[in-house]
Amino acid sequence: MQTLLNQVSQIFDDEQFIHEPVRLYEPIDYTLRLGGKRIRPVMLLAANRMFGGNDDTVRNAAVGIEVFHNFTLLHDDLMDRSPLRRGQPTVYRKWDENTAILSGDTMFALAWQYFLVQPHHRLQEILQCFNRTAIEVCEGQQYDMNFETSDQVTIDDYMMMIRLKTAVLLAGALKIGALYADAPTDDIDHLYQFGIHLGLAFQLQDDLLDSYGDTATFGKQTVQDIRDNKKTYLYLQALQLATPQQQTQLRTLFATTPDESDAKVSSVLAIYNQLGIRSLVEKAIQSQFALATQHLEAIHVPDIQKAPLRQLMDTLLDRKK
Amino acid sequence: MQTLLNQVSQIFDDEQFIHEPVRLYEPIDYTLRLGGKRIRPVMLLAANRMFGGNDDTVRNAAVGIEVFHNFTLLHDDLMDRSPLRRGQPTVYRKWDENTAILSGDTMFALAWQYFLVQPHHRLQEILQCFNRTAIEVCEGQQYDMNFETSDQVTIDDYMMMIRLKTAVLLAGALKIGALYADAPTDDIDHLYQFGIHLGLAFQLQDDLLDSYGDTATFGKQTVQDIRDNKKTYLYLQALQLATPQQQTQLRTLFATTPDESDAKVSSVLAIYNQLGIRSLVEKAIQSQFALATQHLEAIHVPDIQKAPLRQLMDTLLDRKK
Repeated sequence: MQTLLNQVSQIFDDEQFIHEPVRLYEPIDYTLRLGGKRIRPVMLLAANRMFGGNDDTVRNAAVGIEVFHNFTLLHDDLMDRSPLRRGQPTVYRKWDENTAILSGDTMFALAWQYFLVQPHHRLQEILQCFNRTAIEVCEGQQYDMNFETSDQVTIDDYMMMIRLKTAVLLAGALKIGALYADAPTDDIDHLYQFGIHLGLAFQLQDDLLDSYGDTATFGKQTVQDIRDNKKTYLYLQALQLATPQQQTQLRTLFATTPDESDAKVSSVLAIYNQLGIRSLVEKAIQSQFALATQHLEAIHVPDIQKAPLRQLMDTLLDRKK
Repeated sequence: MQTLLNQVSQIFDDEQFIHEPVRLYEPIDYTLRLGGKRIRPVMLLAANRMFGGNDDTVRNAAVGIEVFHNFTLLHDDLMDRSPLRRGQPTVYRKWDENTAILSGDTMFALAWQYFLVQPHHRLQEILQCFNRTAIEVCEGQQYDMNFETSDQVTIDDYMMMIRLKTAVLLAGALKIGALYADAPTDDIDHLYQFGIHLGLAFQLQDDLLDSYGDTATFGKQTVQDIRDNKKTYLYLQALQLATPQQQTQLRTLFATTPDESDAKVSSVLAIYNQLGIRSLVEKAIQSQFALATQHLEAIHVPDIQKAPLRQLMDTLLDRKK
C-alpha cells in the first residue's frame, strides 16, 4: 500500500497545475499540494491492480478522482466557512469567496479533463459512474446542510447522508479502477459494496474518535462535534435510547454554543456514558467492517490479490488501536 | 429556426428537474424555467441537422449544453452580485449563497449526465469538446474579473476574454452537434470558427446596443456599461484613439460611480461621438460577421442546408435594425 501511496504522491509532485490565467489556477495548485491521505486515488489504483489492470492506463483517472475530491473540499470549506484545511488557510480565506467559487468550478472541469485523456472501450460506463458519484456527493452535502436546521433527523437519515457524502466516492473510486481493468460486473458490484461499507465504517469511526479518541496517540480528540452541536451518529443513537428527561437535556445542550464549552462537553459525554453509546458505535463499526469483508471475500480473484485492499481497510479503520 | 426553438422549448417543458433532496433541485428547476433564448441548444440541433443528423440522438446533448450555460449564469450572478436574471430574483437572492454554490455545482454535474445518456462512437471527442469549452468559459470569467481591477487592458485582451467567456460556447455547441452527425473534420473546424466569429460579433453588438441601442424598439439601451465602469470594446477603442486630455477625462469618469449618473453618461458619450466610436464598432461587427460568413460558406454541404444557421446568424445580429 505504501508503494501505491508513494506512486500517487509522485504523480501529484510531477503534475503541472498552473496555467494562464494564473489567478484562476494558483488556488487549484495550492489546494492540490496541501497533501492529504490520497486515499481515493490509492483505492482506484489498488482496485485496478487487483483485476490485473495497467497503471499507465488509470494514472489519469487516479489524478481526476483526487482533483474532484479536492474540489468538493474547496466548495464545502466555503459553504461551512471553515478557516483551515490541513492546518493551512482555506482558499476563500487566503484569497476570497469568488476565487473559491470559480477556481472550484474549474477544478471540477479539470477532474473531467483527466478522465477524458485516455480512450477506453468502457469509457461511457466509467464516466457515468464518476458523474453519478459527483451528483450523489452534492446530494449528501445538501442533506448535511438540511440536517443542521432539522430536529427530525433519524439514524437512517444519517446513514443515508454519510453514504452519499463520504462512502460513494470511495466506492466509486474502486469501481472506476475495476472498470478500467475490465472486471466482471458481479465482482464490480461486490467491490462497490465493499467501498460503501468501508466508507460508512470510516465515517462512524470518525464520529467516535471525535468524542472517544486517544488524544495522546492520534491527536484527534477535540470533542468538536459536541461543541459544534453536530448531529453525529453518537448524538442520534443517544437521542433514540435516552429517557424523556435525558432527551430534553441533550436537546437543550445541543441548542447552546457557550464560549466556554467544557462543562457542556462533560454533560453530553456523561449522558453518552450512561447510555453505553461508545460500545454501541463500536458494534456498528464492526458490523460495517464485517459487511465490507464479506463483499471483498465474494470477489472472484485469488486471495493474494486482495491483500492490498485488505491492508488498506485495516489502515483506515485501525486508528483507534 | 422557429421550429427548432419550439422543439427546444418543448424539451424543457417536458423535462423533470426536481428530485430529492428538493432543496437542492428546486433552484435548478427555477433557473432552467426562467426561459431565455435557448440559443445554444438551437445551434447544436441546427448544426446536427445540417450534416444530416438525427434529433433523437442529440436531444440530450442539447439539454446538457443549456443546463451548463445556466450553471455558469447561476454562479456568475453570485460572483457579480446580480440581483436579477430575466426580471426574476437570482438564486442567491431568492435562496442564499450556499444554495447558489451547491445547486450550481449540481447543475454542472447534471449537464454531464445529459451528455452521458447516449452511446456514440465519437463520444470521447464530444466530451473533450464540451469539457475544453467549460474550462475556457471559467478562464473567460476569470479574465473578466481580472480586468475589473486593471487599467492595462488592451483591445486584444478584451477580444480574448469575450472569445472565452461567450464565443467558445456557441462554437462548442455547433461542433458538438456536428460531431454527433459524424461530420468531416475540416467542416467541423469551419463550423467552429463560424461560431467563434458569430459569438464575437454578438458580444460586440451587445456592447454597442448598451450605449447606442434604440430603446423604443428593443428596450435595451440603458447605458449600464458606462454607469458600471465596464471596460467594453467601446471604452477600450475610445481610450486607444483619445487625445491625452480625453484619455485623462475618460479614466477619471470611469473611476467614479455617482448616484445620479446621467451627467457622467453624457460626458462619456460625447467623447465616444467625437472619436466616431459607434461607426468603428459597427465596422468591427461587420468584419466578424464577414469572417463568420466565410467559414459558413466553406462548409461542404448544399447551400440549402445552411439556411437555418444563416437565418439564426441574421436573427442574432439583427436586433439593431
